Amino acid sequence: MSDRKTRFGRLSRHELGITVAMSTMTEERLRVRYGDTDMMGHAYYANYLYWFEQARGAWCRDRGFTYKGLEEMGYKLPVVEVWARYKGEVKYDDWIVVRVWLAERKRAAIQFRYEVVNESLGKVVTEGYTWHVFVGEEMKPVTISDAVKSMLDREPSDWERLP
Amino acid sequence: MSDRKTRFGRLSRHELGITVAMSTMTEERLRVRYGDTDMMGHAYYANYLYWFEQARGAWCRDRGFTYKGLEEMGYKLPVVEVWARYKGEVKYDDWIVVRVWLAERKRAAIQFRYEVVNESLGKVVTEGYTWHVFVGEEMKPVTISDAVKSMLDREPSDWERLP
Amino acid sequence: MSDRKTRFGRLSRHELGITVAMSTMTEERLRVRYGDTDMMGHAYYANYLYWFEQARGAWCRDRGFTYKGLEEMGYKLPVVEVWARYKGEVKYDDWIVVRVWLAERKRAAIQFRYEVVNESLGKVVTEGYTWHVFVGEEMKPVTISDAVKSMLDREPSDWERLP
Amino acid sequence: MSDRKTRFGRLSRHELGITVAMSTMTEERLRVRYGDTDMMGHAYYANYLYWFEQARGAWCRDRGFTYKGLEEMGYKLPVVEVWARYKGEVKYDDWIVVRVWLAERKRAAIQFRYEVVNESLGKVVTEGYTWHVFVGEEMKPVTISDAVKSMLDREPSDWERLP
Repeated sequence: MSDRKTRFGRLSRHELGITVAMSTMTEERLRVRYGDTDMMGHAYYANYLYWFEQARGAWCRDRGFTYKGLEEMGYKLPVVEVWARYKGEVKYDDWIVVRVWLAERKRAAIQFRYEVVNESLGKVVTEGYTWHVFVGEEMKPVTISDAVKSMLDREPSDWERLP
Repeated sequence: MSDRKTRFGRLSRHELGITVAMSTMTEERLRVRYGDTDMMGHAYYANYLYWFEQARGAWCRDRGFTYKGLEEMGYKLPVVEVWARYKGEVKYDDWIVVRVWLAERKRAAIQFRYEVVNESLGKVVTEGYTWHVFVGEEMKPVTISDAVKSMLDREPSDWERLP
Repeated sequence: MSDRKTRFGRLSRHELGITVAMSTMTEERLRVRYGDTDMMGHAYYANYLYWFEQARGAWCRDRGFTYKGLEEMGYKLPVVEVWARYKGEVKYDDWIVVRVWLAERKRAAIQFRYEVVNESLGKVVTEGYTWHVFVGEEMKPVTISDAVKSMLDREPSDWERLP
Repeated sequence: MSDRKTRFGRLSRHELGITVAMSTMTEERLRVRYGDTDMMGHAYYANYLYWFEQARGAWCRDRGFTYKGLEEMGYKLPVVEVWARYKGEVKYDDWIVVRVWLAERKRAAIQFRYEVVNESLGKVVTEGYTWHVFVGEEMKPVTISDAVKSMLDREPSDWERLP
């Protein structure tokens, strides 16, 4: 994510990837299913968003909690913005690794960034980010509590990854 | 898309939405399915990318050709970049209208921009863009031919929308 | 659905398709999306279940109510059984018509049957059924009330199809 | 699968589950994603078909080959029939185990059967089957070759599971 522009125009600060990672990277490994492909023979572009979500779940478990647990605490984290750049091929039966890390935290929102590595190709084939707002019961944005902040600040090394 | 920034950081030129639309807007209307929702009760964020694709297909038919026809001409238009901002709710059984227009054209790539209007709310709930590269048989980028350029430049008013 | 067996074994009463239709057929027309296909070039088999659901929604609106309305009345109709036989091809951009009708009603359950017609081929390419149980607030099966029975017994001709 | 009928009618030979398993059971474990759920809070019924497919892939690898390899040999195995009965709940973040085994083999078709175990509940929540036809290059049914028969007859214990 060091390149300063895509072939397709100037990039925003997020897209420039100059955000300092706020968290250690978590990796989630998964295999591409036949149903994830389209007639072009590649994984359909919408499926990557499912993989991003799966990686976020792993990121939480890496820190000793679950997204489900956050919802039980009364929070929801709807996605309010997503960006992805597809730079390489992902095909059926490929093993991919989704790297995810917390890149930014605001009063009521957080940004996760992602890199999708295609193990068959041994390179990063996709990168992206998602912005999430913390909302309460009526889907109204709420300030992230200190309790949650400390959860987001956890170091995987200090926690046993939840099964 | 007049606002110059999101709550979530400075925006790229594309995201600023100041690109001059290169084409008349095409609208595609669809209803949200039960299977499009998630346990939060809203349409899952990945589904919007399917809707964008459906709208692109309508944009082509509005100009007297089909995306399928482009593939039969030997072109494929894989998505190389996607961005979406979710600003409002979309729920089961809502009627939504996806507005799509060609926003930019480069030597071998085009950008479509989108607005998703939730008819139940009467407002734009999501906006986004996709970048597509024109590739040939071996998935290698190819310069957009004049024949295709003229198809992209068509005015819906001059063409009967394909069924 | 007159044939009494598939190439793949004897069929159950449901599969024999000898159930007397309890309702007029409703038709829902839709176009196959690129994301619905897989690398084999056909619509992936799971997508038909989304189409079945979309057709059920149309079946309700054809009778002046919505599935959403049933949920607002306190009912949910989870699918407890599904069967489908794929007999012909469905490809990208094909227009298909999903025929749906109520085939059976038990104390707390109903069966919908389906036929998927591929307009490009002009033939029935898929048939199937789904069984749904009426459940109440705690997802416990409940007897179908007379009020709901009368809704299920409605004739489309007597009702204006909801938009 | 010992029960001889559902609440929803007499069952076919397949559904009776009295078919003698032709192969050792293979198990594939996966976690339910947020995007797999619907507003009812359960996994949407179509997603199970993706899980069945993922389990079939594992069944092959358990025997030292891959479905992808079969396609490279010139075969395709489109699904021509699917059946599933949903008997229990599957929710977000649940760990499920999909059991799959070869239940029947005909001249040009095979049937896989499935059981989905929800580890959180410790019980079988869904069962099903899929029928697949072996087709060649032009999607025409072809007799299963002895080479492929011997692959289908393999015992996992004799083969190292492919990664």
